[in-house]
Amino acid sequence: MIGRLNHVAIAVPDLRAASAQYANTLGATVGAPQDEPDHGVTVVFIDLPNTKIELLSPLGADSPIAAFLEKNPAGGIHHICYEVQDIQAARDRLLAEGARVLGGAEPRIGAHGKPVLFLHPKDFNGTLLELEEI
Amino acid sequence: MIGRLNHVAIAVPDLRAASAQYANTLGATVGAPQDEPDHGVTVVFIDLPNTKIELLSPLGADSPIAAFLEKNPAGGIHHICYEVQDIQAARDRLLAEGARVLGGAEPRIGAHGKPVLFLHPKDFNGTLLELEEI
Repeated sequence: MIGRLNHVAIAVPDLRAASAQYANTLGATVGAPQDEPDHGVTVVFIDLPNTKIELLSPLGADSPIAAFLEKNPAGGIHHICYEVQDIQAARDRLLAEGARVLGGAEPRIGAHGKPVLFLHPKDFNGTLLELEEI
Repeated sequence: MIGRLNHVAIAVPDLRAASAQYANTLGATVGAPQDEPDHGVTVVFIDLPNTKIELLSPLGADSPIAAFLEKNPAGGIHHICYEVQDIQAARDRLLAEGARVLGGAEPRIGAHGKPVLFLHPKDFNGTLLELEEI
């Protein structure tokens, strides 16, 4: 079912510093910050040859990563995203297997404009998983 | 400097359950457990089309992931690994930029038989980074 690793999302307390670090210290290709007000984050994309890293910092009062950064002030890996071909079929399979799909198990449009689901970290080895339909 | 994302390593409390979950619930291609006694872990490789997930569980008394699992009993993302072409050049650049390279900043042979370095999570947004020479 799952296909490519679409991205690894890292929540960071200082987006400018983290971007500079990836560009200068690690020599990666780092994009400009993009505000995603509908998702409560500002994102910097780091293009690797085979996948992407997304640096996330909170935007607005109700950012979904604010609590994570309170708990992990230095930052940390927030989630990883796997691609699926059919998000509804993925949802049905996950529910049939007893996995908890967050947000009422209804796919919503994610930060890349495509349907996504998030799965409960307690069902997946303490890792928050995003599935994105590609 | 950094190239492909070589793998995402997830520490898990129950390797058999986590493997079954990736194979059955997520429908991924999951390998057989491999003991790596020199590295204190048993590893299961999950092949995605563009990169790998490595499920890690402790092996032996001094496993480097034992403390992580004590702190995160449900498991969690332990590190991510970026590929580099020249580990010595990477080391020199990191030290010049003021990053802390673990283990005395000397590359050692990693679980894939290639030279690796680990970088201090406090210098990289709370994420433990491995660099592997490819």
